[in-house]
Amino acid sequence: MFTIVLLRHGESTWNRENRFTGWTDVDLSEKGREEARRSARLLADAGLSFDFTYTSVLRRAIRTLWIVLDEMDLMYLPGHSSWRLNERHYGALQGLDKRETAGKYGKEQVQLWRRGYSVRPPALEESDPRHPRFDPRYAGLKMNELPATESLEDTLGRVVPYWNGTIAPTVLAKKRVLIAAHGNSIRALVKYLDNVPDDEITGLNIPTGFPLVYELDDALHPIHHYYLGDPEEIRRATESVAEQAGTGK
Amino acid sequence: MFTIVLLRHGESTWNRENRFTGWTDVDLSEKGREEARRSARLLADAGLSFDFTYTSVLRRAIRTLWIVLDEMDLMYLPGHSSWRLNERHYGALQGLDKRETAGKYGKEQVQLWRRGYSVRPPALEESDPRHPRFDPRYAGLKMNELPATESLEDTLGRVVPYWNGTIAPTVLAKKRVLIAAHGNSIRALVKYLDNVPDDEITGLNIPTGFPLVYELDDALHPIHHYYLGDPEEIRRATESVAEQAGTGK
Repeated sequence: MFTIVLLRHGESTWNRENRFTGWTDVDLSEKGREEARRSARLLADAGLSFDFTYTSVLRRAIRTLWIVLDEMDLMYLPGHSSWRLNERHYGALQGLDKRETAGKYGKEQVQLWRRGYSVRPPALEESDPRHPRFDPRYAGLKMNELPATESLEDTLGRVVPYWNGTIAPTVLAKKRVLIAAHGNSIRALVKYLDNVPDDEITGLNIPTGFPLVYELDDALHPIHHYYLGDPEEIRRATESVAEQAGTGK
Repeated sequence: MFTIVLLRHGESTWNRENRFTGWTDVDLSEKGREEARRSARLLADAGLSFDFTYTSVLRRAIRTLWIVLDEMDLMYLPGHSSWRLNERHYGALQGLDKRETAGKYGKEQVQLWRRGYSVRPPALEESDPRHPRFDPRYAGLKMNELPATESLEDTLGRVVPYWNGTIAPTVLAKKRVLIAAHGNSIRALVKYLDNVPDDEITGLNIPTGFPLVYELDDALHPIHHYYLGDPEEIRRATESVAEQAGTGK
């Protein structure tokens, strides 16, 4: 049996502003940092430790990982950062707040972008300064790998090859793996691992700041999963993220 | 031509206590953190950036690296941590202050440990709780790889294979490399790159908090090296470390 831990980063500085974040590289707020410290305490209290880490190339996930490693005295652990674990790309909506967006596109359309598994928000123009091709961290990628918008299905399409090609072999090599990532990249992984139907996955909400433990069999099929932490707090946190679901926070 | 940057971590929490540190995993002091931030500013002002990082498995070097990456907006960079870049192991002296040590072993002997290129302090007993075999970060290493004490020559003996086998190929692959390490692991690298004679290397002092830039030719022989920063401040910082030379800070 193998144990992996998925950790969704906590509140970012854009959270209170209620804006679509996606690949925008905002940092954790002080509350988000405290959520990371709480995660570290929960992991330590559960007697869990790690040999290898995975995270995205976005600072809110990396900061979460660093805080956890620091608190657990594991700063020296090896790890990889990959764009494949980034949040869902939210296209031209990135930076807009929900009210602006509803005003511009209509409430129903916004619901569709948030709830539809295969629905993409309007794409960023290639000339848009927010396009990832202008960001040095994506310089090694081909133009056709770089999203200008994504549905959750698209996010899954880049997360799953990374799981199969990179993370799964590490787990099978008996390394204890911690994955610090984002609401939608974790959703994509959970959908794949647990075979969640397309029409159910956008209703599945991952709370921030509570480690999600997966126990996997020898073929890496999930046997069991659970959150670490107080069940009542986890329920409240899950409801809170459900309210802002799909905004690429 | 290739450019690499060597960065010695700044003041640790043990610095003011004047104790032999070596592999003891103490953190940066607030002053040490400020030195790291200054390094980041100097690197950015010089227009330098990086593709890959190397550091030790000790938190004062990793913290220095993290602060620099954070300030330079490079948190996503790939990198390796290796025990081979650790500070010189100071054996049974680790944890003792200089006065205690001089009282116990005599001033002349202490000078010899600090200044002699091939001289080892007394080794830690295998049963000593400070022995690295009790530390999970060294669990993957063979007993004969784990030092219980080191001369500077011993430190060089583990740094150079890491340079040749791991760092040099990365440099030759045109990755811009940043190495965040310790006084004696950087000394070992400088001795090797610049072919410094045995009897001169312990008199060569690396200031903390000022990036050391090496320009290397196609065979990785140094063409030129220089510190970033104000020459007068660098001179003072170098004198200051000379006074505590060889203590494995």
